Amino acid sequence: MSKQKRIVAAIGGNALYPPNNPSFEVQKDLITKTCRKLADIIEEGHRLIITHGNGPQVGNILEQNERARKVVPSMPLDVCVAETQAQIGYLMQQSLQNAFHKRGMKRRVTPVVTQVLVDSKDKAFKNPTKPIGPYYKKSRAEHLMKERGWKMKYDRRGGYRRLVPSPKPLKIVAMSSIKKLVSQRGSVVIVAGGGGIPVIEKRGKLVGVEAVIDKDLASGLVADELDAQMLLTITDVRRVSLNFGKKNQKGLPKMTVDEAREHMKGGHFPPGTMGPKVQAAVDFVKNEDRQAIITSLGHLKRALDGKDGTWIVFE
Amino acid sequence: MSKQKRIVAAIGGNALYPPNNPSFEVQKDLITKTCRKLADIIEEGHRLIITHGNGPQVGNILEQNERARKVVPSMPLDVCVAETQAQIGYLMQQSLQNAFHKRGMKRRVTPVVTQVLVDSKDKAFKNPTKPIGPYYKKSRAEHLMKERGWKMKYDRRGGYRRLVPSPKPLKIVAMSSIKKLVSQRGSVVIVAGGGGIPVIEKRGKLVGVEAVIDKDLASGLVADELDAQMLLTITDVRRVSLNFGKKNQKGLPKMTVDEAREHMKGGHFPPGTMGPKVQAAVDFVKNEDRQAIITSLGHLKRALDGKDGTWIVFE
Repeated sequence: MSKQKRIVAAIGGNALYPPNNPSFEVQKDLITKTCRKLADIIEEGHRLIITHGNGPQVGNILEQNERARKVVPSMPLDVCVAETQAQIGYLMQQSLQNAFHKRGMKRRVTPVVTQVLVDSKDKAFKNPTKPIGPYYKKSRAEHLMKERGWKMKYDRRGGYRRLVPSPKPLKIVAMSSIKKLVSQRGSVVIVAGGGGIPVIEKRGKLVGVEAVIDKDLASGLVADELDAQMLLTITDVRRVSLNFGKKNQKGLPKMTVDEAREHMKGGHFPPGTMGPKVQAAVDFVKNEDRQAIITSLGHLKRALDGKDGTWIVFE
Repeated sequence: MSKQKRIVAAIGGNALYPPNNPSFEVQKDLITKTCRKLADIIEEGHRLIITHGNGPQVGNILEQNERARKVVPSMPLDVCVAETQAQIGYLMQQSLQNAFHKRGMKRRVTPVVTQVLVDSKDKAFKNPTKPIGPYYKKSRAEHLMKERGWKMKYDRRGGYRRLVPSPKPLKIVAMSSIKKLVSQRGSVVIVAGGGGIPVIEKRGKLVGVEAVIDKDLASGLVADELDAQMLLTITDVRRVSLNFGKKNQKGLPKMTVDEAREHMKGGHFPPGTMGPKVQAAVDFVKNEDRQAIITSLGHLKRALDGKDGTWIVFE
């Protein structure tokens, strides 16, 4: 068994939401399976703080808001993100608790609704690039652009789609409460779901903004503020690769922070997929006491033993 | 100023959601005003643990699920309740933080997604009585009754409506984590929103159920498990009355637990409105160190000073 660590585990959307618009039961089954693997790590003695994505789930809630808009007042994006934190947080909480119970382990799981501060002057606000929510017909899209000032883009796959900014996370709001929970023996905390609810500061007041924060960058920030020993990013590939998808693709068992920066410059890690994962790892691994792993759920256990995945180390 | 207390404040839906299907902005304004009044109490030095209703909000989310059902997999009621915990919890969190900031007070607000255990043998499951969610046309209602085993009832106001059980809350799940948060200096915790997410135990496993827990009974349970000094129920009337709505209506500034029981037997407090509020107070006030107040937001401050509202005392 590897040395017991304080680990922030960032769970990718694909470990929580199967493809092709699955029923609730199918979603729940996948969450149950994923949580069993997380319980494996906790059983080894590691302290886990869990973050997670919310891509398909927030898309679904936005679609629900749109379809019901004539009878139910629509919620802004920040509120929809909040809703996904509890939707996913609750289901993970229950699945984890049941996995612990089966193993005779005493643990309490607490999902915390989490705001994350972003800079109102972040350049992302001037150039929204992240497509989100339903596809709209032209007439409806034009109405929304005019009425609400949305930026939209035509996508051949289904029509017009809203683009929202993805600003950089600066600070986890109410972090000291999260720290208190994390420090409690037997406590597993779920925080900053979907990258957190984005808020800006306006004359000292917090105000929600219609944006989404990259889940991996937010997870790195959580790990940094908690001074975790490890940032564990769980995604759909076994390890990070150079020349991904090409003939000369090469998996990386290990890279130093400097090497990772080099590869990023070389354009090996595309934005929106592997890019932010490696970026988060590089930002987090500030010294020799910190490490990051990027791997898939299936290779998780071996990766933690140093036998799989990609390790990102200080030097 | 009254003596500083640990208070569980149960906020009624009407203090968070204005009538007549209001826009998000109008909802938010009301939440902001309500939170300012709550900040007043906290400024006096009381420690507040907040619970809240979710009637209109969960109705809206169920309606959204129904309207989008052909494109988005519908969520069961327990998940919808979870979603309202974050929706309302986030907005209250933000409003409270801003109210504290304006007063130069250092506080952190933490909404916690909360499951509440109910008995799978609770007789409520055999006789669902609580109407919830959208009105359905006859054909759709018949389909839902057949397909999902829902119990439905015709209502002249708009069509068929689903009836769900409202079982008694037995235990707050993961309470020791909530206790840890509550014990932290400057921490304001929001828990058990909408009465909590109802779960039953099935061979040791927690399983979500399609039911709703009465918010007032759940709040009383939270207050009991936290060993609070006060259960403060904020509703739309200044105080509890005998013969409510009749010519001989008589407001009660104070009643003992025994008196309250007498009045309940006398049928003075209707189920679904004042009944569970008085019941929760009676259940909570088990000794001389505990008190309950039922009052409106407008009379809150005077009530806490013993000059308004209805006080329920041990003897």
